[in-house]
Amino acid sequence: MRIPVPLEHAHRLLNHGPVAWVGTARGEQRNVMAAAWVMPIDFTPPKFAAVIAADTQTRELLLATGECTLMAPTDAQLETTYAIGSCSGRDGDKFARFLLGASRGSVVAAPLVDGCACWLECRRVPEPHVEQAYDLFVLECVAAWADDRLWQRGEWQFQADGPRTIHHLKGGVFFLTGERRQAKR
Amino acid sequence: MRIPVPLEHAHRLLNHGPVAWVGTARGEQRNVMAAAWVMPIDFTPPKFAAVIAADTQTRELLLATGECTLMAPTDAQLETTYAIGSCSGRDGDKFARFLLGASRGSVVAAPLVDGCACWLECRRVPEPHVEQAYDLFVLECVAAWADDRLWQRGEWQFQADGPRTIHHLKGGVFFLTGERRQAKR
Repeated sequence: MRIPVPLEHAHRLLNHGPVAWVGTARGEQRNVMAAAWVMPIDFTPPKFAAVIAADTQTRELLLATGECTLMAPTDAQLETTYAIGSCSGRDGDKFARFLLGASRGSVVAAPLVDGCACWLECRRVPEPHVEQAYDLFVLECVAAWADDRLWQRGEWQFQADGPRTIHHLKGGVFFLTGERRQAKR
Repeated sequence: MRIPVPLEHAHRLLNHGPVAWVGTARGEQRNVMAAAWVMPIDFTPPKFAAVIAADTQTRELLLATGECTLMAPTDAQLETTYAIGSCSGRDGDKFARFLLGASRGSVVAAPLVDGCACWLECRRVPEPHVEQAYDLFVLECVAAWADDRLWQRGEWQFQADGPRTIHHLKGGVFFLTGERRQAKR
């Protein structure tokens, strides 16, 4: 079940560096792409940095609407992650092509794609220089959600035989999020 | 053994989102801190973004010298990662306090700390606005190295019973880098 995550915990959803999906929508048009280069950059209000290449439809829709969603897929979505990161929404609707269910965000119109581990609804903080120079976007998270089977007591609780988030190495090679370890101090 | 990594592969060293160490040096003074918010932002030349808080000695040394190193620690360094992320170099030399061995970089003077999985020698690309507004630094990698027990044929090769890189969730809780999965397409 999708449960709300307090905004002061939102950075923790992507703090461990998983690959992300970026969702966008303008009117009836929707898109979703995979992005490995996404990370938190601030706690409160929660902000994220994301690299979104210049030629993507995602960037066009993000610039047009000022909104997007960030999601962390699970290993059950590994093939889809690679697939939506390897084609353009301009070549056809990815939701139809990859049979993705989604609902509209609670604050932004961008899609929350079914089956992800978490969902962050974001607004663009305009930073034209770094957007142009590095394809780097600053996003403020305005609502956050997580799957309550995976997120409890303010942190990820992955089980040995359950779904995990995934981390992209290169060209379709991923690592699962592995065992938990707690420092003693 | 520390082997050179071609610069066109350098982004892959941190592509999966592990926690990083940031090394700095000015004359005899050296420092190292942990930073979860570090990621690649470009391929060639390889560039990285890193959040380095305003009050840190690391930032002072990075601004003074224009250089730093980025490293990915292994799970054997998990306690040290949390420790060097929880104290300031201004309160005493962390290399002495935590018994860290290190050598000077090949291009930059900042330290390459023994026992890490990889080492990236970096130069600051001055971006005063995002540095001030978000504590966000753009770094260009000018030399890269990896432990040849963990990095082979241009990618991480972690073994089930061997050292792994680690990912920070919050306050001393980490995840190991888990199993490898390859997408079929």
